[in-house]
Amino acid sequence: MLVYLNGDYVEHTAAAVSVGDRGFVFGDGIYEVIRVVNGRYFMETEHMSRMDEGLEGLMIDLEKEMREAIPEIGRKLIKENSLDSGEAKVYIQVTRGSAWPRTHTFPDPPAEPTVYLSAEPFSPHTDLHNSGVDTITVSDVRWSRCNLKTVNLLPNTLAKQQARDAGVNSAVMIRDGVVTESPNANIFGVKDGVLLTYPASNYILSGITREVVLGVAVKLKIPIDFRPITEQELFALDELFFSGTTTDIQSVNRVNGRNIGHGKPGPVVQRIQQEYHEMLHSGEW
Amino acid sequence: MLVYLNGDYVEHTAAAVSVGDRGFVFGDGIYEVIRVVNGRYFMETEHMSRMDEGLEGLMIDLEKEMREAIPEIGRKLIKENSLDSGEAKVYIQVTRGSAWPRTHTFPDPPAEPTVYLSAEPFSPHTDLHNSGVDTITVSDVRWSRCNLKTVNLLPNTLAKQQARDAGVNSAVMIRDGVVTESPNANIFGVKDGVLLTYPASNYILSGITREVVLGVAVKLKIPIDFRPITEQELFALDELFFSGTTTDIQSVNRVNGRNIGHGKPGPVVQRIQQEYHEMLHSGEW
Repeated sequence: MLVYLNGDYVEHTAAAVSVGDRGFVFGDGIYEVIRVVNGRYFMETEHMSRMDEGLEGLMIDLEKEMREAIPEIGRKLIKENSLDSGEAKVYIQVTRGSAWPRTHTFPDPPAEPTVYLSAEPFSPHTDLHNSGVDTITVSDVRWSRCNLKTVNLLPNTLAKQQARDAGVNSAVMIRDGVVTESPNANIFGVKDGVLLTYPASNYILSGITREVVLGVAVKLKIPIDFRPITEQELFALDELFFSGTTTDIQSVNRVNGRNIGHGKPGPVVQRIQQEYHEMLHSGEW
Repeated sequence: MLVYLNGDYVEHTAAAVSVGDRGFVFGDGIYEVIRVVNGRYFMETEHMSRMDEGLEGLMIDLEKEMREAIPEIGRKLIKENSLDSGEAKVYIQVTRGSAWPRTHTFPDPPAEPTVYLSAEPFSPHTDLHNSGVDTITVSDVRWSRCNLKTVNLLPNTLAKQQARDAGVNSAVMIRDGVVTESPNANIFGVKDGVLLTYPASNYILSGITREVVLGVAVKLKIPIDFRPITEQELFALDELFFSGTTTDIQSVNRVNGRNIGHGKPGPVVQRIQQEYHEMLHSGEW
């Protein structure tokens, strides 16, 4: 598989960054994952806009020319890896670059940012979309700038692994008594026909798929209440579901072994799933 | 400069890890920095013990033989880089290794952990030890497992840079109204002859130098109160100082432009500094 790294297109097994790269020693970088359907990005503008926010949040000064080349580099990888038809995903990572010696302060003069992209085939989790998933609650131990999509992802990986070790698919993260996110997806609740979701803030990563879901809800005339779901009311919800770029829309059937609603995908999640998948595969966006 | 990476001793400019390394894409690893005086590690057992704690905390399964080889690899780097006399530091980083495709869950079967070490000359910040430093307060936005010395260091780098942008040396981080740490050092206060420091918990990285300071305080019969310093009482303190492996002991003269005590290194920090430096350079430990 061909990937892109700092100007070169190379086999993924040959792509390597310096041990002085601040991505490696500090997790000092941002990333994006974009769905690709029949060779075309889904929600390209939104992903690139969020990438810009991340770069700005981290004060990584990516040259304008390089920034603007990124979507095209991804398209070249899609083509070179024969991903023009069917499903794929493009991964983009930008770090503050490589600098010696290692110092917490930013390199002065600035280093050239490291730019890495890959394009891989992707298989949607259709079985999980149909069945829904089981989860456990875990404590949301992340930092308080979760709105930035950075590669400081250790708490997310640990939470996801904790779920897998417990024999379930994923986790519902709880901070200060309320539901925030899953380790790699946003969370929505449904109660009496109203959609509930954590308001965009520094405690969640405001996902692109989350935005799409909100748009779908408006279209379907499902009212939205932007408020956190408390841990206490979790089991009184009618439905609970995840949204994410590679997750799509997945019903959360059970949390800690207890049913949410009837313990299977409910009517609201199913309607949203249907609209979402139609949109994703329509090629019209 | 020769460094060690996964079995090879190579020039630092040639040392590179895969873009699939979980250190690069997730910050999924731990690190240590150890002072070296005249070719000998300072507090080797303590650093290696903390490294073990980190590996355990992250569930990184480093082969026993590899784990035990690490101090010797560092010693070889010290020798090969002609750091047998004077001051140096050894940096150790272990990540969960490189795996494809990128998944939040741990690679299954496990990947071979990445082991990277460097040994560099080090110049103690003698001028700052003598003068003390100026600081600003910044919000401690880190995750809540700060007791693990991981490479998820983005909040630390951002805080340190924020201080530098404000024209001062470092930052005093505040969480929930109390002082926790600096971005790369522990913090002690002195009030009426009593040493104050945040108790070892998940909100601070319990530094090795912090432990040494505590030992020195006991020796000097300075009573220790293990409790957080509130933001409100900060300016009523007699003294405030940082401790860290490369920081050593540094008086914090000012916070946000306001004096702490007399705005210069006070008697307690000076006594602790003297004892600490004598110990560090005695070669007897």
